[in-house]
Amino acid sequence: MNDFYETTVRVRYAETDRMGVVYYANYLIWFEIGRVETFRQMGFSYKEMEERDDSYVVVAESRCRHHRPALYDDLILIRTRVAEARSRTLRFAYEIRRETTGELLATGETLHVICDSRNRPKVLPQKYRKYFPLTPPEEVPRRS
Amino acid sequence: MNDFYETTVRVRYAETDRMGVVYYANYLIWFEIGRVETFRQMGFSYKEMEERDDSYVVVAESRCRHHRPALYDDLILIRTRVAEARSRTLRFAYEIRRETTGELLATGETLHVICDSRNRPKVLPQKYRKYFPLTPPEEVPRRS
Amino acid sequence: MNDFYETTVRVRYAETDRMGVVYYANYLIWFEIGRVETFRQMGFSYKEMEERDDSYVVVAESRCRHHRPALYDDLILIRTRVAEARSRTLRFAYEIRRETTGELLATGETLHVICDSRNRPKVLPQKYRKYFPLTPPEEVPRRS
Amino acid sequence: MNDFYETTVRVRYAETDRMGVVYYANYLIWFEIGRVETFRQMGFSYKEMEERDDSYVVVAESRCRHHRPALYDDLILIRTRVAEARSRTLRFAYEIRRETTGELLATGETLHVICDSRNRPKVLPQKYRKYFPLTPPEEVPRRS
Repeated sequence: MNDFYETTVRVRYAETDRMGVVYYANYLIWFEIGRVETFRQMGFSYKEMEERDDSYVVVAESRCRHHRPALYDDLILIRTRVAEARSRTLRFAYEIRRETTGELLATGETLHVICDSRNRPKVLPQKYRKYFPLTPPEEVPRRS
Repeated sequence: MNDFYETTVRVRYAETDRMGVVYYANYLIWFEIGRVETFRQMGFSYKEMEERDDSYVVVAESRCRHHRPALYDDLILIRTRVAEARSRTLRFAYEIRRETTGELLATGETLHVICDSRNRPKVLPQKYRKYFPLTPPEEVPRRS
Repeated sequence: MNDFYETTVRVRYAETDRMGVVYYANYLIWFEIGRVETFRQMGFSYKEMEERDDSYVVVAESRCRHHRPALYDDLILIRTRVAEARSRTLRFAYEIRRETTGELLATGETLHVICDSRNRPKVLPQKYRKYFPLTPPEEVPRRS
Repeated sequence: MNDFYETTVRVRYAETDRMGVVYYANYLIWFEIGRVETFRQMGFSYKEMEERDDSYVVVAESRCRHHRPALYDDLILIRTRVAEARSRTLRFAYEIRRETTGELLATGETLHVICDSRNRPKVLPQKYRKYFPLTPPEEVPRRS
């Protein structure tokens, strides 16, 4: 549950802005890639989860803290971890690093609610439960 | 049929790249805005065309020629014209201008096929025909 | 200091995803629009702040909480408020509402560090200080 | 000069739209990735071309023809070819294919002018000439 899953992306020209760095909204796209590749490495396809099991991992909250800017053409390491799993919600934590140097560029977190295609909350289907063992109650962090 | 429909957008920081100008793919997004606002000014909603009449204006071709760069915070004038209307296809032409100076920044064209939600070509529904009178055959340009 | 500044945007087709709603990273782009239009309504241009005063409002943190999905072609009301002003940092809070119904779609916050063009932190130039009176120390919220 | 250079990308959720397919502007981003990876496979870095040799490959024209839609999570094969090289301009041609099936999804072309950082046209620096041998005049296609 504390393992990081890793994948890499190359910074696209389209992702930079006139400050010469990666525009901040793109980190959320990288978080999405981190989640999807985590699912693939765990052994299932998020696309099939949507299409076959009518289960969408809908974003309820996101946050990102920026430490150093990502630059054009950087190879970016996206590290994703399941931070909390409950019957109806999943929380992921992320680290974004420059792959060549290991420098930490950003950290972040997203909270998700499992929904059906009509956007109604539902319980994570049984077949996916093994990938997301429930977080013990005492480990669930308090949040204001 | 030769009238331009006009709308404006403000260049977003997110749309610039590290060259300090608007990244080229964003012009296609502006063309889309031009089409949708043209429809609204003609008197119908593209959203309803999709949702009520199962008719999607699917892009088959696009082209764009860049003359001068659009810059951050520029007010952009999008001018859209129906270039050709046939029973199953629509062609639009665009001009992108800096609103304050009138300078021509880009010109472009898109060709569209009317499709249903399953991506099958269909005839433009009768109720929309009045907005797009058929282009006389002798005016249809030859293309290689 | 507690006033909201308001601006509107229309949801673009490009901003939707295959779930049929606005993709979550786009809310950060709307926050950026909220900031820039707040500056314009206050009486200055962010572009000139960068170009004439070598002062960039660099994002250090962002967070967003999603309540209801924004949909294609919705008119979106972006409400922006200066949540905290210090000599070297600015914090903004946002509300995203469906303009026609007033429904709250999302809330968020961003923290910024004033930097020069070489990404070094600096004090907000004197000429902008009047727009951002310092938040009294007792009002600065504690954060873990 | 007629060889295709190949690279792959995975379709991101962010790249889909509410039609359930990849939004058309994203193909231009894939073309950009095709160019940059072509340069890398040829033996040089486009980033260094900009930063060390003050030479930008600025887009003057783009076109794209869509055959079949790219879908979420598809592995996309981007095939890039130098279609024409002149002293001050480069033209690239592209094929976008679904990697698993080989199906042709789109074809396109971009024309570029070599410019310095102040957007003034210049001759491609000598050191890059070997990667782009001049197209014989008789092979340069006529265009209206």
